[in-house]
Amino acid sequence: MSPRQLHLNGFLKGAGEYHAGWRVPGSPPDAGVSFPFLAEQVRRLEAATFDSVFLPDLLGVPDDPPEVGERVAWSNDTLEPTTVLAALTTLTRHIGLVATASTSYHQPYTIARIFASLDHLSRGRAGWNVVTSLNDAEARNFGLPAHLPHDVRYRRAEEFFDVVAGLWDSFDDGAVRADQATGAFFDPAGLHWLDHHGEFFDVAGPLNIRRPPQGRPVIAQAGSSGPGRALAARIADVVFTRALPLPDAQAYYASVKDQAAGFGRDPEHLLVLPELATVVAPTRAEAEDRFAAVRELLDPRVALADVQYWAGVDLSGLPPDAPLPPLPPGNNRSAGAQAEIYAQAERGGLTIGDLVRIVADGDGAIIGTPADVADHIEEYFTGGAADGFNVSFPWLPQTLIDFTELVVPELRRRGLFRSEYTGTTLRDHLGLPRPASRHAGD
Amino acid sequence: MSPRQLHLNGFLKGAGEYHAGWRVPGSPPDAGVSFPFLAEQVRRLEAATFDSVFLPDLLGVPDDPPEVGERVAWSNDTLEPTTVLAALTTLTRHIGLVATASTSYHQPYTIARIFASLDHLSRGRAGWNVVTSLNDAEARNFGLPAHLPHDVRYRRAEEFFDVVAGLWDSFDDGAVRADQATGAFFDPAGLHWLDHHGEFFDVAGPLNIRRPPQGRPVIAQAGSSGPGRALAARIADVVFTRALPLPDAQAYYASVKDQAAGFGRDPEHLLVLPELATVVAPTRAEAEDRFAAVRELLDPRVALADVQYWAGVDLSGLPPDAPLPPLPPGNNRSAGAQAEIYAQAERGGLTIGDLVRIVADGDGAIIGTPADVADHIEEYFTGGAADGFNVSFPWLPQTLIDFTELVVPELRRRGLFRSEYTGTTLRDHLGLPRPASRHAGD
Repeated sequence: MSPRQLHLNGFLKGAGEYHAGWRVPGSPPDAGVSFPFLAEQVRRLEAATFDSVFLPDLLGVPDDPPEVGERVAWSNDTLEPTTVLAALTTLTRHIGLVATASTSYHQPYTIARIFASLDHLSRGRAGWNVVTSLNDAEARNFGLPAHLPHDVRYRRAEEFFDVVAGLWDSFDDGAVRADQATGAFFDPAGLHWLDHHGEFFDVAGPLNIRRPPQGRPVIAQAGSSGPGRALAARIADVVFTRALPLPDAQAYYASVKDQAAGFGRDPEHLLVLPELATVVAPTRAEAEDRFAAVRELLDPRVALADVQYWAGVDLSGLPPDAPLPPLPPGNNRSAGAQAEIYAQAERGGLTIGDLVRIVADGDGAIIGTPADVADHIEEYFTGGAADGFNVSFPWLPQTLIDFTELVVPELRRRGLFRSEYTGTTLRDHLGLPRPASRHAGD
Repeated sequence: MSPRQLHLNGFLKGAGEYHAGWRVPGSPPDAGVSFPFLAEQVRRLEAATFDSVFLPDLLGVPDDPPEVGERVAWSNDTLEPTTVLAALTTLTRHIGLVATASTSYHQPYTIARIFASLDHLSRGRAGWNVVTSLNDAEARNFGLPAHLPHDVRYRRAEEFFDVVAGLWDSFDDGAVRADQATGAFFDPAGLHWLDHHGEFFDVAGPLNIRRPPQGRPVIAQAGSSGPGRALAARIADVVFTRALPLPDAQAYYASVKDQAAGFGRDPEHLLVLPELATVVAPTRAEAEDRFAAVRELLDPRVALADVQYWAGVDLSGLPPDAPLPPLPPGNNRSAGAQAEIYAQAERGGLTIGDLVRIVADGDGAIIGTPADVADHIEEYFTGGAADGFNVSFPWLPQTLIDFTELVVPELRRRGLFRSEYTGTTLRDHLGLPRPASRHAGD
């Protein structure tokens, strides 16, 4: 048996994840809507044998303070990700293609069709990042004054997923025969109505698309709150987590794998991929210089807006040396991310200014040599903290090129990462079985 | 000024529009889900300088009687069309890309994003066919026991379109500046909230995508009922109509152009494209032989199911020599298509068996020589009945190849159709101006 191998997902967002990434000379001014620019990055990641790329999503323009909003690039100008993935299917042959779609404001029949279609278009390389939406600006685009309460969001997400998964099993594998000689197009015994009636959805089915090549497109999830973690443990093939200190990452890893086992699943079929941002150069000094030059381009108000976004509270008017204000009663934001930033602040006795500085300093990015990055990866990977990484890129294309040209070869030298694709589907790359239909053996 | 030119749209559906098309030898058994097969047809239409291709949509598996359902190919196994269009953007350079999306079961913010994204991906070649859904099987996939009443469907469609069009104008042209030097990403004065509050939708906006290349993707519409025609006259750039006898087509053409003028529009900016199916061969006898061979492959129960679908009434148990049964009170189907089939039956004193035969005989397809087809096209085009045609293909790829190789050259010889693309966007091909933003000049 071959040794355990890392899984690498490339997290692609506009001109890069760092808020000043778009200001780096050479960054195209239309990075957020330029498909050729994105496609070039994806081809580089495919050449580096990444498992997959992932495109996030947001269903609105977040409510940043207006004087900051004009400077915030990262969320206000980007294409709809499922159409982008579809376009990428024709320009790639191996790499998995994963996009976010919210369970809060879409309909499961529509999402089932879109991801089934993407899985057919890509011949088995599609993945769906299942999220709940937590921004009031999104809610107001879908007829609601504010986003759904945290528990309702997660109950809806659980039911939404079950409906989608059920719809994907509408046709048995091979039920569509298209027998030209007899005129029998499909086997009626292989077609299943869903007849779902739940708290949020009534969906009769069947889906009008034959079963996806992967049986079920790969399911990603990023919830770190209690209900988020439970959802991930039950349904996810891949969990994207925030970057955490090693002990916290180990604790999360063990806990979510235990939870998966509690759902009767093989814990090895739930892959934990923490986020990893890197600025890498042949020497540590060069890497630090590169980052320092880009840090210069960051408007501190943008970093403040980011802290405010994740904290989910209004920080305007507060001095930099103040702590985060107490959460208002009935607070209803992303319990996971919000809890993390509050815990981080409390643990370190951090002020608002400290938190802004952490964002400005790259929020945990590894800035160093290829060996530094590979050491970090190996430590987490062999230390029970990660099955791979969700690699984000502070600014594009440079930090992506550096990762693929400097870090990937080092990982291969250490025997941690593939040097060629051996399968054809995203499930193949991830070492995950193709799920049997729920109707198999009926 | 160059002479008035035809507009040709290619209507692509699975293995072809004729119900037995998939049984023709050489038809791929997975035509409905095979993207390479579809892409090959689209490339042929682009080589023939068609204005656009169009993919229909259905949000469910229609309720055909089960013993017929197993034989019906045309609606039960097809990919989601917006993802397919997105994939086509990378394999085409000129041809317009139009897909159906329902106003009955989607959310306008989502549809605005998807078609804005398609317009960016294609650099200005996207079109949206605005439909209302009329099938109970679709309603039951979206939480409703039956489809919406006809008047509600159309009120919702009107409001849905207004929201989508408003969202596309969220950013003024050029408002996203991405000025790396100053850090100003966009001009706040060029960003507009929608703040829509209506009967069906509350949508704050703004859309999180810059204005589409065409300003507004091309709007297609197919309604032939009173409210459907009014919607088309108000919002559509292109109207797809059913094939009608010349006098009826002339009457429709004049009426919808008048209605457009009544909305203050230039009637030349509303293009009427009747459906046109052809089976063409160098001689009339060959064309008839070709069709006769395929007609042999049609199960008459499939033709009956088609009549039943459009009539919107249960025909099971009725003898072939019976007339269509009276419509039940409170009937709520597609007023346009249903009215047409009832009017057709009444006009001709047709029985159910006659209607089945008409479907089986190709439902008005022109079966003949290239000159026959070109004569028909020219008669409608110069006779005030059409600005071009929505060309459907009874079986693929043969009837499409024949149309592009035999009919298109004949149309060019007559000076009716372009021999190369002269613009870059679908609006260019159609001779339609790029709409100004509603905020232009504010």
